[in-house]
Amino acid sequence: MDEKLTDGRKEFLSRDFVQGFPAHVGYTVENVQYGCFETRLVIEPRHIQQDGFVHAGVMATMVDHSMGYAAFSTVAPDFRILTVEFKINFLRPAKGRELTCRARVIKVGSKLIPTEGEVFSFDGTEETLVAKSMATMAAVPGRKLKP
Amino acid sequence: MDEKLTDGRKEFLSRDFVQGFPAHVGYTVENVQYGCFETRLVIEPRHIQQDGFVHAGVMATMVDHSMGYAAFSTVAPDFRILTVEFKINFLRPAKGRELTCRARVIKVGSKLIPTEGEVFSFDGTEETLVAKSMATMAAVPGRKLKP
Amino acid sequence: MDEKLTDGRKEFLSRDFVQGFPAHVGYTVENVQYGCFETRLVIEPRHIQQDGFVHAGVMATMVDHSMGYAAFSTVAPDFRILTVEFKINFLRPAKGRELTCRARVIKVGSKLIPTEGEVFSFDGTEETLVAKSMATMAAVPGRKLKP
Amino acid sequence: MDEKLTDGRKEFLSRDFVQGFPAHVGYTVENVQYGCFETRLVIEPRHIQQDGFVHAGVMATMVDHSMGYAAFSTVAPDFRILTVEFKINFLRPAKGRELTCRARVIKVGSKLIPTEGEVFSFDGTEETLVAKSMATMAAVPGRKLKP
Repeated sequence: MDEKLTDGRKEFLSRDFVQGFPAHVGYTVENVQYGCFETRLVIEPRHIQQDGFVHAGVMATMVDHSMGYAAFSTVAPDFRILTVEFKINFLRPAKGRELTCRARVIKVGSKLIPTEGEVFSFDGTEETLVAKSMATMAAVPGRKLKP
Repeated sequence: MDEKLTDGRKEFLSRDFVQGFPAHVGYTVENVQYGCFETRLVIEPRHIQQDGFVHAGVMATMVDHSMGYAAFSTVAPDFRILTVEFKINFLRPAKGRELTCRARVIKVGSKLIPTEGEVFSFDGTEETLVAKSMATMAAVPGRKLKP
Repeated sequence: MDEKLTDGRKEFLSRDFVQGFPAHVGYTVENVQYGCFETRLVIEPRHIQQDGFVHAGVMATMVDHSMGYAAFSTVAPDFRILTVEFKINFLRPAKGRELTCRARVIKVGSKLIPTEGEVFSFDGTEETLVAKSMATMAAVPGRKLKP
Repeated sequence: MDEKLTDGRKEFLSRDFVQGFPAHVGYTVENVQYGCFETRLVIEPRHIQQDGFVHAGVMATMVDHSMGYAAFSTVAPDFRILTVEFKINFLRPAKGRELTCRARVIKVGSKLIPTEGEVFSFDGTEETLVAKSMATMAAVPGRKLKP
């Protein structure tokens, strides 16, 4: 369904993804399709928790932000996305060189957009599924959002 | 039930909380009791998302880490804590000067520890509940964790 | 905040609660307040799972339905409630004579209503917390719902 | 990976699935593979909620029980399964003639088993995805379970 997304919109979404907290943590965009976002993080010491693994919050933020932008890719340009809620299961402690996240919209909607996403660790040789998430995203008219 | 926690253990937990990713984001510890952790974040521009609100990942990481340490305060010193899963609902967009998080253990357990936590924003005058979370934490013997 | 609920509305909600699947399972209403619903189930052999405990689905249905009606008690009479999503943690295997469920609205809203609920088992002497849940309910204009 | 499941074990799991509350509601087994369970429900008036749709609890119970047995199919015969927690998103109101549920294990584990499941409605012509769930199941030695 990728023909639904213009090159201009893809570029906007890719640029818009990397700002504020996600830019601070270091996530980057790998691939954008209508309803799908693939992102990446090179693991650094600042991403680690008390036992030497990637912090759960690093994976939670990654999958939340990627699911949000997967939803963002399906709405009209005057709509913005807020996370209503998400849930994440951690399947094994995460370590390695990089994380990859693949997020997708489960059902396109005009107001509520259910999404899902997976986080994989990569040690230089193979990918391992480390976390899986489901979320409810809300599409909100931009004019209604005044911080 | 606070008599169960020695001053030394409280100091260890308070210090141990602030390292790696949570130290990088800027969370601090306000209060530690047996089964309870209260934490704080002074909101800075790097914590913001694309619409000017506090990023969902900042709140998710805060409540995950605080719930983890609430669980950590109930186990024997040779045990470590890993997040099995958590779920978080965002009740309204978060803004203001600070976030406060209050996390507590729902039921003390030897292996699985259910926890809950709330995140409040503070604008200088009053606190507003902005997110609520529930998690399953796992107590794991330290010797079994080798990153 | 109970003055917000007329006796007529309370009676309607109490009656409306017990129909279809919830009536079939056997849940009854104990107490109704604005934003709160307390319900009850006398445990019978048909509510049990393969190991002799109350089935997780019996508790999940109870807390979902009770949270839904807690939300229902806060909306205008021409609105109906649908469950967007819920999450439930089971704290210990449930057994005994009865279950009690206490559900409440976390934040009153015009479209999305976050709720929470707890399920207690009762063995004739004391109550034990056996499950805890959080949900997102949606208020939908009745005219939009055509099965 | 189906060779891991003997015909005897498949028959046991199929029979064991239909008892207590799930038998009372009317779920049946369609297909059993190692780590996978497919189940079915013919929708009757007793499964309906106040607006004429299938009750959320009917779908939640179906996917919980099916995910539990998907996990059950991966453990040694002296182990039993308890639900630690699950989360379910409802994508649209469910109606029609039948529900089908497909549940599978995300990662085989000796103690905690993450699972996922989808519920589809069937109107006689086509299947529609109506709910999606993720859970944490616990494998517990049978001798430790005394109701």
